[in-house]
Amino acid sequence: MAEPAYDPNNVFGKILRGEMPAHKVYEDAHTLAFMDVMPQGDGHTLVIPKAPSRGLLDAEPETLAAVMRSAQIVGRAVKAAFEADGLTVFQFNEAAGGQTVFHLHVHLIPRHEGVPLKRHEGGMADPELLAGHAARIRAALG
Amino acid sequence: MAEPAYDPNNVFGKILRGEMPAHKVYEDAHTLAFMDVMPQGDGHTLVIPKAPSRGLLDAEPETLAAVMRSAQIVGRAVKAAFEADGLTVFQFNEAAGGQTVFHLHVHLIPRHEGVPLKRHEGGMADPELLAGHAARIRAALG
Repeated sequence: MAEPAYDPNNVFGKILRGEMPAHKVYEDAHTLAFMDVMPQGDGHTLVIPKAPSRGLLDAEPETLAAVMRSAQIVGRAVKAAFEADGLTVFQFNEAAGGQTVFHLHVHLIPRHEGVPLKRHEGGMADPELLAGHAARIRAALG
Repeated sequence: MAEPAYDPNNVFGKILRGEMPAHKVYEDAHTLAFMDVMPQGDGHTLVIPKAPSRGLLDAEPETLAAVMRSAQIVGRAVKAAFEADGLTVFQFNEAAGGQTVFHLHVHLIPRHEGVPLKRHEGGMADPELLAGHAARIRAALG
């Protein structure tokens, strides 16, 4: 069964093209990481590929490898920056799978013992708060 | 901050060594996929590396690449086998992050519109049911 095609007119495509702002924490040749504007916890960060990929199932293997390498690098920094006890990783495919932006992305959420996740639709975070969190993660990345 | 070391005395280590059974659906040189015995939905499958890795943060980049390549292959088959509308992927690190078995694993859960996930601790699934689901996924893998 064919997956739906990639549509470049999505929020993350716009961020990649500089048409929309983002609180960026990491970038390399193949990936970009920035703060989720509807965080499920402090430090909730997204990693996306620059290659046009809708989700896990249509991405090139090299794209997946690059995304996970960056997820590891950024994940270590996120966990350190927020002195977290754990890290929860989500990757959603298609609306039924929880996806709301149809450009492949990996959620990295630092977790603390006894603190439940917030709902993703819980609202937009304060931009200044996100800017401060992004700065903490960039500092942890060295 | 150093991650805890890998302890080979875990359930997935035992499955890899053939000391415990599993409903296997896919295997290659670097990875193994099998049914989650406490499924959050029909077709809930796990992909693990053969390399000893506790989670995302301590795995070799090549290990992550192999796991995600297999997650894509198995994810396509799982989605097809269960005629799913989407696919939800979880990867948990440390107890605070949701991890219960301390060998790196990726959850692949086929999703249908309007059907919520079940709790992971909802209980052990019927082995015959899991065997049937594994057979459907293996058939979809061709």
